[in-house]
Amino acid sequence: MLSGSANSVFVWLVNAHFLPVELSKAYRLINHGPAVLVSSAHGGVENVMAASWACGLDTVPPKVTLVVDSETKTRELIDGSGEFVLQVPTAGQAAMTHAVGSLSLVDDPAKLSKCGVELFRVDGITIPFVVGCAAWLHCKVIVEPHVQSAYDLFIGEVVGAWADDRIFRNGHWHYETAGPEWRSLHYIAGGHFYAIGEPVRVDPT
Amino acid sequence: MLSGSANSVFVWLVNAHFLPVELSKAYRLINHGPAVLVSSAHGGVENVMAASWACGLDTVPPKVTLVVDSETKTRELIDGSGEFVLQVPTAGQAAMTHAVGSLSLVDDPAKLSKCGVELFRVDGITIPFVVGCAAWLHCKVIVEPHVQSAYDLFIGEVVGAWADDRIFRNGHWHYETAGPEWRSLHYIAGGHFYAIGEPVRVDPT
Repeated sequence: MLSGSANSVFVWLVNAHFLPVELSKAYRLINHGPAVLVSSAHGGVENVMAASWACGLDTVPPKVTLVVDSETKTRELIDGSGEFVLQVPTAGQAAMTHAVGSLSLVDDPAKLSKCGVELFRVDGITIPFVVGCAAWLHCKVIVEPHVQSAYDLFIGEVVGAWADDRIFRNGHWHYETAGPEWRSLHYIAGGHFYAIGEPVRVDPT
Repeated sequence: MLSGSANSVFVWLVNAHFLPVELSKAYRLINHGPAVLVSSAHGGVENVMAASWACGLDTVPPKVTLVVDSETKTRELIDGSGEFVLQVPTAGQAAMTHAVGSLSLVDDPAKLSKCGVELFRVDGITIPFVVGCAAWLHCKVIVEPHVQSAYDLFIGEVVGAWADDRIFRNGHWHYETAGPEWRSLHYIAGGHFYAIGEPVRVDPT
């Protein structure tokens, strides 16, 4: 697969900061409601799209929901493969995140390279991962034909989770001690995101 | 209903800042992934709980998903009434938000007053609204017995939306020009929230 796609750049360097997250803590990677990147692959075609409508559904085993419009290439790829990877992009990736959410692979086969997406591989997983994100969740679709068809709603079980330990380690985000380029993105509309902000701690009751 | 509940404080003052949001923009009220308050009522019992797992599902008509554990009183009330109100609490309400997410009405009938929740009424709507939030979405359950039962997942159509115009107006959040107490809350775990942060604007492609 090294030369399998003209549509993306593969990075094979080992990143020492890419570390597994225990599955019981995986929900914390998206619990704060960030925009996500969804990567998918099937039949030699690969794609990355942006989504705001990804959400926790359960903790053990971890599950997520994801809304994927029926008009997207990602929908076709997930329908074909039964899996996807959710990624938490950083504020430094805002332009790329917005670009992959605006351009469709249906219209432009060179979407990923035009959007500046770099991909990497994890052993044993077909779906490509996006370089430079803060966290990654590999999900297998729990097939629910009715909600997929009626609402474009997918339920996924998280079967693997990883984070960059410069921003998430020991089960916690560390936004307050990392640079602003690491902040998660929270999308409103029209190219307008907010970065995650400052901690608000409430003493346990 | 004025004296109908010893469990909460009703505020009947007209708030001139409580203004309707057009339904086509309602998704923007939760698109950035804030923690929400879920209010519910049935058979003379009322409750408010906190939830992180509420998410947009569609824009026109607006729909949301909401995960409500089967052990909660809120689940019983939503099952009974077929409706709920999602509210976006502010950073100034962090302690109350965490409190209603930690204490159960199943265990303590005085939950709402102990947590400092104040409620108000909107004409024609049985479900109470929480005073002091940034936004409110009145939702009717679209009954989907299988996903409700298998995943504790509810699908709601948003039939009414409102926001406080000091923080959301003309279809946009104005966090950058309001005080820090207005910021939305984004929950991780263990009483640890982040407030929403600074805008990140990407030029439309």
